[in-house]
Amino acid sequence: MAKRFSVSEYTDGILAGNRVLLSRAITLVESTLPSDQTLAQQVLDAVLPHAGRSVRVGITGVPGVGKSTFIEALGLHLVREQGKRLAVLAVDPSSQRSGGSILGDKTRMNELAAHPQAFIRPSPAGRSLGGVTRSTREALVLCEAAGHDVIFVETVGVGQSETAVHGMVDFFLLLMLAGAGDELQGIKKGIMEMADAVTITKADGGNEQAARRARAEYQNALHLFPLAPSAWSPVVTTSSAVSGAGVPEVWAVVEQYVQQTQASGYFQRRRQEQNLHWLHETIREALETRFYARPDVAAHLPALRQQVMDGRKSAFGAAEELLGL
Amino acid sequence: MAKRFSVSEYTDGILAGNRVLLSRAITLVESTLPSDQTLAQQVLDAVLPHAGRSVRVGITGVPGVGKSTFIEALGLHLVREQGKRLAVLAVDPSSQRSGGSILGDKTRMNELAAHPQAFIRPSPAGRSLGGVTRSTREALVLCEAAGHDVIFVETVGVGQSETAVHGMVDFFLLLMLAGAGDELQGIKKGIMEMADAVTITKADGGNEQAARRARAEYQNALHLFPLAPSAWSPVVTTSSAVSGAGVPEVWAVVEQYVQQTQASGYFQRRRQEQNLHWLHETIREALETRFYARPDVAAHLPALRQQVMDGRKSAFGAAEELLGL
Repeated sequence: MAKRFSVSEYTDGILAGNRVLLSRAITLVESTLPSDQTLAQQVLDAVLPHAGRSVRVGITGVPGVGKSTFIEALGLHLVREQGKRLAVLAVDPSSQRSGGSILGDKTRMNELAAHPQAFIRPSPAGRSLGGVTRSTREALVLCEAAGHDVIFVETVGVGQSETAVHGMVDFFLLLMLAGAGDELQGIKKGIMEMADAVTITKADGGNEQAARRARAEYQNALHLFPLAPSAWSPVVTTSSAVSGAGVPEVWAVVEQYVQQTQASGYFQRRRQEQNLHWLHETIREALETRFYARPDVAAHLPALRQQVMDGRKSAFGAAEELLGL
Repeated sequence: MAKRFSVSEYTDGILAGNRVLLSRAITLVESTLPSDQTLAQQVLDAVLPHAGRSVRVGITGVPGVGKSTFIEALGLHLVREQGKRLAVLAVDPSSQRSGGSILGDKTRMNELAAHPQAFIRPSPAGRSLGGVTRSTREALVLCEAAGHDVIFVETVGVGQSETAVHGMVDFFLLLMLAGAGDELQGIKKGIMEMADAVTITKADGGNEQAARRARAEYQNALHLFPLAPSAWSPVVTTSSAVSGAGVPEVWAVVEQYVQQTQASGYFQRRRQEQNLHWLHETIREALETRFYARPDVAAHLPALRQQVMDGRKSAFGAAEELLGL
């Protein structure tokens, strides 16, 4: 691994907006070495009072929806027209089928990656979902402390990572294609109901009319669904990363959401709940990891799983057996 | 507590369809006494080979949707016209806001409760969600072993119990009222996407037209949503518990689902997955209960939770502190 710095070197560098030190600190939170983890926690504790002041947006959509081009278009609008500093993080656990690495090929976001106000970080390779969500959440804190006003957290929309991302962002944006039906097959059930906004992408070429029709259909459908605790009614728009049409409007929706939920107090309350959620999630994960790593548990688990699957032993009976070891 | 029987008395009684012994055995699985739990596990293990042969249907809807009258109408159709033996269980953890106890007042299902082929069991009072779901799942196994062909598991549609019930049934039925909008406020986001079928209730009096319109709207909306892994496309119907119109049709939908998913192998696969899910859920719950019950953990948790909520300490840092105690 690359050179390590001291806690104050990392902290001062991050707070000064030094991209190299921010990058190195993220590498540290992604590391599984205990010594790196200790250092990472010290850096996180030191920068924490300076974090929490960004708008965190989860963005998801299946491969083919044009996620990278959309993120680049929206990102360029933010850095150029809105004067924002933007960080883009990706959650792409290797254990999930993903249809290709996300953000792995940075050249897909050439212009955005080259912009001084943008910071793009690909997903760490070869990690479990739990590992990726943890390091993404810590990277998010580091990026906030480094002064980014907006954080995008990108997922592929086919796995369980969306639920995890939903638990770390303020706003959840779903990208969809026009032509309802086939393209839905890839999206996991339940993601739709998480969306605070949907944008129908690729509304250009000869595709505008189909996109407008899809927009109307989804808007009607979402109105039939229960309101979230935020009391926010999901908005559906159309957009084109090629022409740029509809891209600023997506950001306007996010800003409207932030205003409304900050005024109601929901925005702050949700963040507190998310913090508590991660506290208990971390504990749960650690307890489970320790338990299943025990040699006696590992020795008995496969046979018990098989008996439970086959209905020869009750789930509770098998659990009691393992817990009593 | 009432008289206890021996394992073989319980087992023989349940397998012979003795309702008193079935009732007593369910009281046993609901008991928190360790001696009762031991006996309950022995009874469960003994009857397990005779369980698993029913169709398990989760039924949910907010208070006011007419859940009891609908369940009674559908239940009477099953026992009278279809010759089925039916058990009705309820999941209603007292910790959730429920708008009244469900099945608590058995008189709401007078006719069904009096029918010899029907067995109705209210939710145990004063238990946590974890406790209720565990005892409900065990009661379900006992009811199957007692020869019931169909098990209804009823929830109130406002809490987290629906996810738990979704994990123990084959088919999930959502009851809705016509007049999309206001009545939705009570339903929790995410429940809609779990539904294998929706029936618009109270399609009688002057309400038929509104119910038909709601049916068409929801059918359109659900078509826009991704297919479940079952490859089943959710069906929306209208029904009236008063006139009986549409009630047999709901059962026909369930049977069609069972046929289709048994033919594809999904039905059996899902049950195996559910069994494994409950094995690991039980272990998780036990690990968490043990951890949070530790006096040192309980002593430090409140202050750490407050610091995490306020953003003064990172969730991961606080978790490490507790785990290192």
